[in-house]
Amino acid sequence: MSDQKLKRGFASDNNSGVHPAVMEEIMRVNHGHTVGYGSDPFTARAVKLLRKELGEDSEVSFVFTGTAANVLGLAGVTRSWNSVITASSAHIEEDECGAPEKFTGCKVLTVDTPDGKLRPDLLRRHMHGFGFEHHSQPAVISISQSTEMGTVYSVNEIRELAAFAHDNSMLLHMDGARLANAAVSLGLPFRAFTTDAGVDVLSFGGTKNGMMYGEAVCFLKPGLAEGFKYLRKQGMQLASKMRFIAAQYIAYLNNELWKECASHSNMMALELEKRIRMIKGVTITQKVESNGIFLIMPEDVADRLSREYFFYPWNEELSEYRLMTSWDTASDDIIQFADRLSVMMSEHR
Amino acid sequence: MSDQKLKRGFASDNNSGVHPAVMEEIMRVNHGHTVGYGSDPFTARAVKLLRKELGEDSEVSFVFTGTAANVLGLAGVTRSWNSVITASSAHIEEDECGAPEKFTGCKVLTVDTPDGKLRPDLLRRHMHGFGFEHHSQPAVISISQSTEMGTVYSVNEIRELAAFAHDNSMLLHMDGARLANAAVSLGLPFRAFTTDAGVDVLSFGGTKNGMMYGEAVCFLKPGLAEGFKYLRKQGMQLASKMRFIAAQYIAYLNNELWKECASHSNMMALELEKRIRMIKGVTITQKVESNGIFLIMPEDVADRLSREYFFYPWNEELSEYRLMTSWDTASDDIIQFADRLSVMMSEHR
Amino acid sequence: MSDQKLKRGFASDNNSGVHPAVMEEIMRVNHGHTVGYGSDPFTARAVKLLRKELGEDSEVSFVFTGTAANVLGLAGVTRSWNSVITASSAHIEEDECGAPEKFTGCKVLTVDTPDGKLRPDLLRRHMHGFGFEHHSQPAVISISQSTEMGTVYSVNEIRELAAFAHDNSMLLHMDGARLANAAVSLGLPFRAFTTDAGVDVLSFGGTKNGMMYGEAVCFLKPGLAEGFKYLRKQGMQLASKMRFIAAQYIAYLNNELWKECASHSNMMALELEKRIRMIKGVTITQKVESNGIFLIMPEDVADRLSREYFFYPWNEELSEYRLMTSWDTASDDIIQFADRLSVMMSEHR
Amino acid sequence: MSDQKLKRGFASDNNSGVHPAVMEEIMRVNHGHTVGYGSDPFTARAVKLLRKELGEDSEVSFVFTGTAANVLGLAGVTRSWNSVITASSAHIEEDECGAPEKFTGCKVLTVDTPDGKLRPDLLRRHMHGFGFEHHSQPAVISISQSTEMGTVYSVNEIRELAAFAHDNSMLLHMDGARLANAAVSLGLPFRAFTTDAGVDVLSFGGTKNGMMYGEAVCFLKPGLAEGFKYLRKQGMQLASKMRFIAAQYIAYLNNELWKECASHSNMMALELEKRIRMIKGVTITQKVESNGIFLIMPEDVADRLSREYFFYPWNEELSEYRLMTSWDTASDDIIQFADRLSVMMSEHR
Repeated sequence: MSDQKLKRGFASDNNSGVHPAVMEEIMRVNHGHTVGYGSDPFTARAVKLLRKELGEDSEVSFVFTGTAANVLGLAGVTRSWNSVITASSAHIEEDECGAPEKFTGCKVLTVDTPDGKLRPDLLRRHMHGFGFEHHSQPAVISISQSTEMGTVYSVNEIRELAAFAHDNSMLLHMDGARLANAAVSLGLPFRAFTTDAGVDVLSFGGTKNGMMYGEAVCFLKPGLAEGFKYLRKQGMQLASKMRFIAAQYIAYLNNELWKECASHSNMMALELEKRIRMIKGVTITQKVESNGIFLIMPEDVADRLSREYFFYPWNEELSEYRLMTSWDTASDDIIQFADRLSVMMSEHR
Repeated sequence: MSDQKLKRGFASDNNSGVHPAVMEEIMRVNHGHTVGYGSDPFTARAVKLLRKELGEDSEVSFVFTGTAANVLGLAGVTRSWNSVITASSAHIEEDECGAPEKFTGCKVLTVDTPDGKLRPDLLRRHMHGFGFEHHSQPAVISISQSTEMGTVYSVNEIRELAAFAHDNSMLLHMDGARLANAAVSLGLPFRAFTTDAGVDVLSFGGTKNGMMYGEAVCFLKPGLAEGFKYLRKQGMQLASKMRFIAAQYIAYLNNELWKECASHSNMMALELEKRIRMIKGVTITQKVESNGIFLIMPEDVADRLSREYFFYPWNEELSEYRLMTSWDTASDDIIQFADRLSVMMSEHR
Repeated sequence: MSDQKLKRGFASDNNSGVHPAVMEEIMRVNHGHTVGYGSDPFTARAVKLLRKELGEDSEVSFVFTGTAANVLGLAGVTRSWNSVITASSAHIEEDECGAPEKFTGCKVLTVDTPDGKLRPDLLRRHMHGFGFEHHSQPAVISISQSTEMGTVYSVNEIRELAAFAHDNSMLLHMDGARLANAAVSLGLPFRAFTTDAGVDVLSFGGTKNGMMYGEAVCFLKPGLAEGFKYLRKQGMQLASKMRFIAAQYIAYLNNELWKECASHSNMMALELEKRIRMIKGVTITQKVESNGIFLIMPEDVADRLSREYFFYPWNEELSEYRLMTSWDTASDDIIQFADRLSVMMSEHR
Repeated sequence: MSDQKLKRGFASDNNSGVHPAVMEEIMRVNHGHTVGYGSDPFTARAVKLLRKELGEDSEVSFVFTGTAANVLGLAGVTRSWNSVITASSAHIEEDECGAPEKFTGCKVLTVDTPDGKLRPDLLRRHMHGFGFEHHSQPAVISISQSTEMGTVYSVNEIRELAAFAHDNSMLLHMDGARLANAAVSLGLPFRAFTTDAGVDVLSFGGTKNGMMYGEAVCFLKPGLAEGFKYLRKQGMQLASKMRFIAAQYIAYLNNELWKECASHSNMMALELEKRIRMIKGVTITQKVESNGIFLIMPEDVADRLSREYFFYPWNEELSEYRLMTSWDTASDDIIQFADRLSVMMSEHR
């Protein structure tokens, strides 16, 4: 596939561009001088909007990337001798090139999970060595909502994990790079499955759902992350012209743009699922609960298809692939993609 | 001063907004899907433009902030047991909250300098302990161009520092957060006082000169920074929607927008200098060679003035203050500011 | 159990003291002045003796602890964006409180293994993401010889792992905290199952086998770990009075003291195994190939027994315990311990 | 000079061996088994003895080296965004290969001082940027007692620094690698110029005064360094056979061995000073208050002399050299050294 064509594919929800409403707000704040580094009125407004979603006690700080939001959020509530427990498939384990370890000094412990979701019983293997100085001290359980497998935790599942964490004097961290997709999937406001469900630290993302750049590190309870402002600066994540991140969040939260985008994206995923399920020889391997579809198809079909559409292999041994829909995926994209896959499958046999 | 007014002040060149031409290019690239993380054609084009400025051998990578560009550029060419030598007033020493030490593990050694500029004879005090395992091994000399004091290194001064560094098996790093202002001040293309003058690693900034966010780490000679792509990701500086940083550099380098902005900014500084020099009781403490003016004025005058204009104290003991002009500073801003200062000074006596 | 009694137990081979021959050599080097930090003739001699064992190309550096030997050995051959793959039960994963992550910045990836030993097929799940900047780059496979489970790799098993590592452009690291026990178990000189079997980096320990303190980081091939002397100093592991570590290695390697001690220790383990196997209701869970015995016994028996002998639980869920013999374990200790266990078991029913 | 000769020189107080009383105690604890990692009765006793010296509230932990004691002591009371302020000549700045920066992430800020001693007025240049997130937050003032220049702080000088630190919400750290020499010089018990003078964190050394290895990190006030036991393990400084470090401290503190050794060493320094002052053409540059003598002599004389005695250049530009006496320096060593220097000086003219 040629990059130049800029055809909408299913590689990642960050291959899409910026939603017009976000762009408009960026332009709106672009006049005159304003104080740098987040002391401006736009940032104050964006923080206020996030607090409205997450609770008045939440402390919100903007950073540039999802990796940064995760790493700095974790750094804020750990010391170097701690460990963070997560799923083997978690972004902080698989896709951040060791940034959590490098910056926090902590050990990242993993458990295998078939659907990307953690459950207390899976975590027990790491619940030992507390107080024993030879052993990294477990301090945080980190989950992704929605998960890297496109699945979504229910409120009860999150509550259960939060209780489990707190019972062990640990905190619950949520990687919310695709938080809006989860909210739409659950049909709940953000707060219901974050703050109110016991989550302590949240990465609240938007780049995968129509924003340009910028994520929010949210400490959902008072007293967490003393000194976080220094951590952000030392972590090279303090934006000088912060108003332009703030503008994006203002656009994203105003008029529920996040919901509009994520609803569309999730709906496209369901439509794509429906069409793929009708194609013989292709297997969908995960519940489609947000905007990701995981499927097994013959390797040579995948190769052929990938010359027309950009998408990623997930598990090469199983010939499993990932498709992501986005806020701008069109019904036609879905139809055409499914058609091509269908044709290739029939030619394959 | 109320933030809300958004009056143009002299606090920092990053209090200004984004140049319309930059904004336009951002909008231009915002259509359709493109590969994330810098494998897109826009990034390729921006890199090509930077290579044209800096030499075909230069390796260019985009990051988010000036601090990140400095830290990752230094990390690319050091091991943790090295030291980096710089001016006491350097950004990497004073204004990055220890990010260089935290991320690289290196020691940052400083020398005092009256004008923000290093000279070989100032550096000699740190030229010892080579090969001695008890001592951090000096590996990099880091200079800012233009400096934090608004001064500008001549080509010869840079050449001399590069030769000194290379003679000691060290590298020369340049923090170019205000590189364009230096280029305009020297009347030279970038290459003449970077690559061709012996600089090895460069932070090529634009945010302080009309861009929104994004800086470029440039290794100017082949073979430096093996593995830098991993370092950038681990450093939490890999943008998913990289095309929007690329777009800014395309706008910045096309039609010499950088020159237009920096010329204006430097000219405004000279005009401001001229007017301030006419005010009795106020002393300008540094040569005005780029877009910064340093002045000593009575503390109570500064207090009064700062209720109308936002600017920073530089040295509180000396009652020294810093004024920065920007690409959007208007002549009227200058005139009004100088008038207010003049009035306050006369009332002061 | 009262600490004060100093009864020989089975808690760890580091609960024993220092072998008299080691103590004697320490006293022998204690006269007059000698250069500090390892430039002394005793250190030169100790290094020579180690090179005789491991090959003339090996580079040997002394540090204080086994954790330090592992961490600095790994740091010498990695960059922060790398990963190290090891067994879930490995010391670097379970017992170093995150020291590898903190100091190297690397990710430590694990695989479960029933006997503490890695095999290529177990490692495959981590053999992906090479060249992909989002993913920590696998650089080292780390094995323990003998393992934390008391098992011992055969030469062929090591060769196979080395070949697998090298085929993937990775290195093979060996944690040899109990290297002598493995050598005795295999009936081979050190070199046969380290350097000659393809191991690249070795922690050569002695503290668990009659020494007082001090371990050796050994790079077994030329060109590894450039700058290691700085790494050791920065890692806080450079001994000023190095001659006293050197003396211990001289004693340890002269007259094959290591073999005498490890042979005894291993033999005691076999004797203990034999006696325990005769006790009904107690299960030995691992092959006894060095000086560790793993057994399952009823929890209340273990509690009772631990009031008389100090030893560690291994897996509390399984009621599995670890017993370690040492260079100074006496036959009587074995007999009495087995007797007590036997009595308690019979009373348990 | 040949290393092999083991002639007593003046290179460093760590070129000497171990005092017989220390060796004897090491042998005394070497029987039977005892719990590892510091839970043994010998360690308890050594800690008790140190608490007797420093106050019952002090928390004492043993590590291996002076560098480790400094770095971990500082790590215990800082977060990565802090800075530590010290003298340019301090061990943590000059002689630890960046270990403080690497492990703590903190910035080390320095001030020049003619005699190795800090004073509040020297520190003021770094007393800024509090609360400003761009700037490393000053958290600790670190002094050496006695200093690297052989000078000794008076109790009042320490009090003044402690007050200054505490007034700025900072702590006072003391590198006591040569603490005994200072105590003897002041004629005071340790407590008088540490705990009682306001010091918060102390590295209490003994290796330079007759011990073999091992230093003590002492937090002198309750509540400092929560989690330090994890920090020590993660810092690779937890000794398995801790009883052998403990034994040394027991010997060192019992019967005031520290005083005997340091008194002798200091006295030898004074004798050496007296004799050197009588030699024309040689200048002593620092007050001789502990066991170091700094002198300027012609470079060729120094070269000749260094073929007979091992000692270090201090400032090559000034042709300044350092001589250190030790607990085992003999009067004859002094006489012979001074004679040789005298002869060489006369031949020099």
